[in-house]
Amino acid sequence: MNQNFASDNTAGAAPEILEALAEAATGRAMPYGGDDWTARVERRLAEVFEADCAVFPVATGTAANTLGLSIITPPWGAIYCHEHAHIILDESSAPELFTGGARQIGLPGAVGKLDPETLARKLANSGQGDVHHVQPAVLALTQLTEWGTAYSPSEIAALTEVARHAGMRVQMDGARFANALVGLGCSPAEMTWKAGVDVLSFGATKNGCLAAEAVVVFDRGLAESLPFRRKRAAQLYSKMRFISAQLEAYLADDLWLRLAARANDTASLLADGLQALEGIELVAPVQGNEIFLRLSDAVAAGLAERGFIFYPWTFGGAGVYRLVTAFDSEVSEIEAFVAAARDLTGKRSQAS
Amino acid sequence: MNQNFASDNTAGAAPEILEALAEAATGRAMPYGGDDWTARVERRLAEVFEADCAVFPVATGTAANTLGLSIITPPWGAIYCHEHAHIILDESSAPELFTGGARQIGLPGAVGKLDPETLARKLANSGQGDVHHVQPAVLALTQLTEWGTAYSPSEIAALTEVARHAGMRVQMDGARFANALVGLGCSPAEMTWKAGVDVLSFGATKNGCLAAEAVVVFDRGLAESLPFRRKRAAQLYSKMRFISAQLEAYLADDLWLRLAARANDTASLLADGLQALEGIELVAPVQGNEIFLRLSDAVAAGLAERGFIFYPWTFGGAGVYRLVTAFDSEVSEIEAFVAAARDLTGKRSQAS
Amino acid sequence: MNQNFASDNTAGAAPEILEALAEAATGRAMPYGGDDWTARVERRLAEVFEADCAVFPVATGTAANTLGLSIITPPWGAIYCHEHAHIILDESSAPELFTGGARQIGLPGAVGKLDPETLARKLANSGQGDVHHVQPAVLALTQLTEWGTAYSPSEIAALTEVARHAGMRVQMDGARFANALVGLGCSPAEMTWKAGVDVLSFGATKNGCLAAEAVVVFDRGLAESLPFRRKRAAQLYSKMRFISAQLEAYLADDLWLRLAARANDTASLLADGLQALEGIELVAPVQGNEIFLRLSDAVAAGLAERGFIFYPWTFGGAGVYRLVTAFDSEVSEIEAFVAAARDLTGKRSQAS
Amino acid sequence: MNQNFASDNTAGAAPEILEALAEAATGRAMPYGGDDWTARVERRLAEVFEADCAVFPVATGTAANTLGLSIITPPWGAIYCHEHAHIILDESSAPELFTGGARQIGLPGAVGKLDPETLARKLANSGQGDVHHVQPAVLALTQLTEWGTAYSPSEIAALTEVARHAGMRVQMDGARFANALVGLGCSPAEMTWKAGVDVLSFGATKNGCLAAEAVVVFDRGLAESLPFRRKRAAQLYSKMRFISAQLEAYLADDLWLRLAARANDTASLLADGLQALEGIELVAPVQGNEIFLRLSDAVAAGLAERGFIFYPWTFGGAGVYRLVTAFDSEVSEIEAFVAAARDLTGKRSQAS
Repeated sequence: MNQNFASDNTAGAAPEILEALAEAATGRAMPYGGDDWTARVERRLAEVFEADCAVFPVATGTAANTLGLSIITPPWGAIYCHEHAHIILDESSAPELFTGGARQIGLPGAVGKLDPETLARKLANSGQGDVHHVQPAVLALTQLTEWGTAYSPSEIAALTEVARHAGMRVQMDGARFANALVGLGCSPAEMTWKAGVDVLSFGATKNGCLAAEAVVVFDRGLAESLPFRRKRAAQLYSKMRFISAQLEAYLADDLWLRLAARANDTASLLADGLQALEGIELVAPVQGNEIFLRLSDAVAAGLAERGFIFYPWTFGGAGVYRLVTAFDSEVSEIEAFVAAARDLTGKRSQAS
Repeated sequence: MNQNFASDNTAGAAPEILEALAEAATGRAMPYGGDDWTARVERRLAEVFEADCAVFPVATGTAANTLGLSIITPPWGAIYCHEHAHIILDESSAPELFTGGARQIGLPGAVGKLDPETLARKLANSGQGDVHHVQPAVLALTQLTEWGTAYSPSEIAALTEVARHAGMRVQMDGARFANALVGLGCSPAEMTWKAGVDVLSFGATKNGCLAAEAVVVFDRGLAESLPFRRKRAAQLYSKMRFISAQLEAYLADDLWLRLAARANDTASLLADGLQALEGIELVAPVQGNEIFLRLSDAVAAGLAERGFIFYPWTFGGAGVYRLVTAFDSEVSEIEAFVAAARDLTGKRSQAS
Repeated sequence: MNQNFASDNTAGAAPEILEALAEAATGRAMPYGGDDWTARVERRLAEVFEADCAVFPVATGTAANTLGLSIITPPWGAIYCHEHAHIILDESSAPELFTGGARQIGLPGAVGKLDPETLARKLANSGQGDVHHVQPAVLALTQLTEWGTAYSPSEIAALTEVARHAGMRVQMDGARFANALVGLGCSPAEMTWKAGVDVLSFGATKNGCLAAEAVVVFDRGLAESLPFRRKRAAQLYSKMRFISAQLEAYLADDLWLRLAARANDTASLLADGLQALEGIELVAPVQGNEIFLRLSDAVAAGLAERGFIFYPWTFGGAGVYRLVTAFDSEVSEIEAFVAAARDLTGKRSQAS
Repeated sequence: MNQNFASDNTAGAAPEILEALAEAATGRAMPYGGDDWTARVERRLAEVFEADCAVFPVATGTAANTLGLSIITPPWGAIYCHEHAHIILDESSAPELFTGGARQIGLPGAVGKLDPETLARKLANSGQGDVHHVQPAVLALTQLTEWGTAYSPSEIAALTEVARHAGMRVQMDGARFANALVGLGCSPAEMTWKAGVDVLSFGATKNGCLAAEAVVVFDRGLAESLPFRRKRAAQLYSKMRFISAQLEAYLADDLWLRLAARANDTASLLADGLQALEGIELVAPVQGNEIFLRLSDAVAAGLAERGFIFYPWTFGGAGVYRLVTAFDSEVSEIEAFVAAARDLTGKRSQAS
């Protein structure tokens, strides 16, 4: 039984995705995206987003984020993001590489979320127009945030308005886009372009694909250089059909929403089970498939000892950990975790 | 029936590879290469190459080539390659991006092959040590070459000796490594490090995988920065097992050699059939799965009209075309092509 | 009479420097640093620093800093500096450009100075060795700091020890090196390599030159790539003698120390005069030629109205301003400023 | 007496330029180009070029060229230039650095000059619009060329028309702009924007300045990013007045034209004297201040032995050398060189 709650990227892939790959594997197709799968995915995403968007399948989240950023910032631009954002903490200096040297500026914000006032205050003092300073170019949001929380469409709109006012563009890192969407119960359009997002990393890998993401550009004019940038970034796959076939199956019959719902539901179950226990405290609301909670050293060690795998979340302070469920998480796995935690916290209570 | 002879990257994927993906898809595994598949592939490639090499799976040939180059040239270095090399003609400015600005210098050479004299002459006049000039850093070979020919191990050794003498390192673009190997009948070690190659792009995509290549570094000391470069290049796959599982199946039970043999054999069959026809002339020896030949406009047009797909090879001059077979090419496809060509050249003969 | 206290870079150049240029202007000399002036400057700086250092004259502080940094960080490295450091706030993304994409990480610290504890704490959590994170590579200090303060040799040593322990190298931005040196009364060696500094930007422009800085590398092994980097950075001057002649004159007969002493002395005079006034408060100790002080809006406006030029220092909070003296500041200028301030603060006192 | 004919960059600086520096050295001025000298130079160059051009003083030719190129090519663009162009042969990989990775493509052409047919043929096969290939972006001309020849305005126009037709922009490396201008006897406007040039490196260093060049952009719209690029390139001088004062004096009272005339006249004298000698042959027309000629080994060695300094020009073949005069060349120096050559060729003649 799976005991790995370290990340949803420890999960494998959904059977529907694998079937799609097997079906795509026979016969000849023109390379580099000149195939039918890619054309269909573009149309499908346009439907999903109710927008004439430009779509660029790639195979890593790092590629999706950095290519998306590269079309909306010059090399002397500044990308404003949360200080715990994946792009500033976990992608080495890939953003610098693909933007030609733009800079990220991290801002604080409770439970992983930026707030419009902090952003506005920082921008007011950014030296816009002065060549000595990097120039405000991009507001980058993560949805789900790195604290597992979700911006509501109106929260997104309030932030993008500040950015727009400063002449900036807006990128969204949607590595867990489906989880956020299902959690919020809104439409893809409401969570993106209707709220002021220009460029999206549409993540699918974590939610049941093998390796499939898409850069979705809502203003086609912004995407003109992206075909050249993608090739140059080594992300133009010769057998592109195998990226696109994943995305096609992912978007068919609401598979993506069903997979995300399962991850979210098991996360809720886990959160509910754990916060009922004495001495365990959630440090952020659970709005997707991630749980951030405070454990005593003894409980954390006890869980690890019993084979459960999960990471400390150092930004939350000492004793804070992250648990992540996935598209294939099972209720029995959740129950086993909660039972172990109950056992350990119970012991702890008795001991004290 | 397949009529596409444009490239081996128009083919799909071998069933064995797909089965390996399906098997790899269940259960949890640590991400970013911390999985068992990746560990096994590293060991397997060490066996295949009879060397304690460092192995870095990636998913495009562009990534393999440019990352491999990046560890052996500084940003002010020069990469000497054939003037028709894929890296200089077909990868946009990806080499510049990933090397931080190094320059490629194209040299002439018959049927796609560099010769030691031309290389030595060029190096003698390269301004080594003079800061005004880019500094000789890398000799880059393609195996199979862009003209479908194969360097013999002794030809490779003669070239790498010139490079070594000038203090340079040697990279090999092995996009069609298996085809060259099978054509030459030598060992992987003989074709690489024993002949002076430092870094190899070990291609698998064209020969039956979906998207799987590996940078193989024969001198581990050269690979120290590669883990950081790969992440930064957006080529560190979170579900790396799905790249590694392809490579593992590819290398199991000599699958890779069997697939390449089929491609090579059908290419030979095609070449034999065509050169027997009046008015068709091969312009380079067929040493793998690519055929370069001269066709009259009428015959080329006639074949296109009947649905056959293939590209002109402009570097060969007017009327030169390229035909490529793949791991899944069938004899019946070859026969159909030859029959059509016979029909068209026969007609042409009668007409004249 | 000069009323400009905005920066020492608003000053012109010292007569001795101009005479040296005029002398250097006749006759032929080999270009690109192959001249006698450059050779002499290298030897002279070796004497000044009591070290077999490598010396690279350039013409802007941005060039000196970014080239110096580029030899001690890889493109995936992190440069730790004060959050108000010139390199992170005032040089656009030049550091990213010349390092190939390394990242600067700003740390807090009172009156512009880093402290060892903060640095150590940050490094402890930096993800060293983990490819997802930028890798600690450089500690960058500014001397004088951006708050006009000077690190003592022992303070420098305490910081560089933390860096060394983490495998990092140390760079010093010495845009106001002479001012710090004169303020501290120590030797150039004590303030640099003896305290653990590897690479120095030796600034001369602000202190009486037209445009002359030097990258000084105390460990020659680190400098191997710098000749190539400097050319590539467009900082290899064809008539290099004109940069070197400035530096030669600057270092002759202790001119540099005399110029700095005059700037420091006038700054002290100014500071003494101002802090005697009611309602004016220094916010950092004056240890060179810069004064940071708090003024009421009325006094600041009054001074501006009377023609005095100086900048607000936003990082110090509302009402904080910076005054800078230079190598050519005159006592009469200082007295005029103090008199005006006295007049304005007196008025203010009477009014209240 | 000067015996150095290696390059005009071995010369010092004109007295008028030095006087201007001395005059500029007193008093305070706002830094980074906010000074009066810079404003006046901008206006003066607008007059000189009869155009509302944008002007960016910098201090090296490498900076002028690479910054100029950077505003008219994307990182995946191709810069077409002569195969012997300074930018492709003598500036390390500075063009790659400042353009973010664009590629230069060298074309052949007699006596250093591109011809429209060769350019058009190359462009016809450049893969425009295909992401796999670098995209034609810039035609880069050198005036004087690297063979000392000058393009006439109509030759420039014929080339720029081909470039314009392909959607490309045109840059001119005018390191020896004044020498070409004086040689041709046309106006600055006729030699640049009237003939289709978009961006010019206006060189002054070689012709009597210490270190002063200007990027001149004839279409202001192209220059929008240049202020940011210049800062980021470490070419925004804090005491900019000292660059601008050189340019101001250079352009005053036709100083620049008088200096170039002297260089050209002495070159003519030298060419006339040498080609009258038996066994000495000019290999390119002398249209400025450079002479390319064929010498026997004995004569070349004899001249070197007598203390004359000059370089072989390897691109011209064995036995070809370059001689360069400068703004301060004297007739007596020329006569001494010719006399020595006469002596040596005479000897040779007698010996044979």
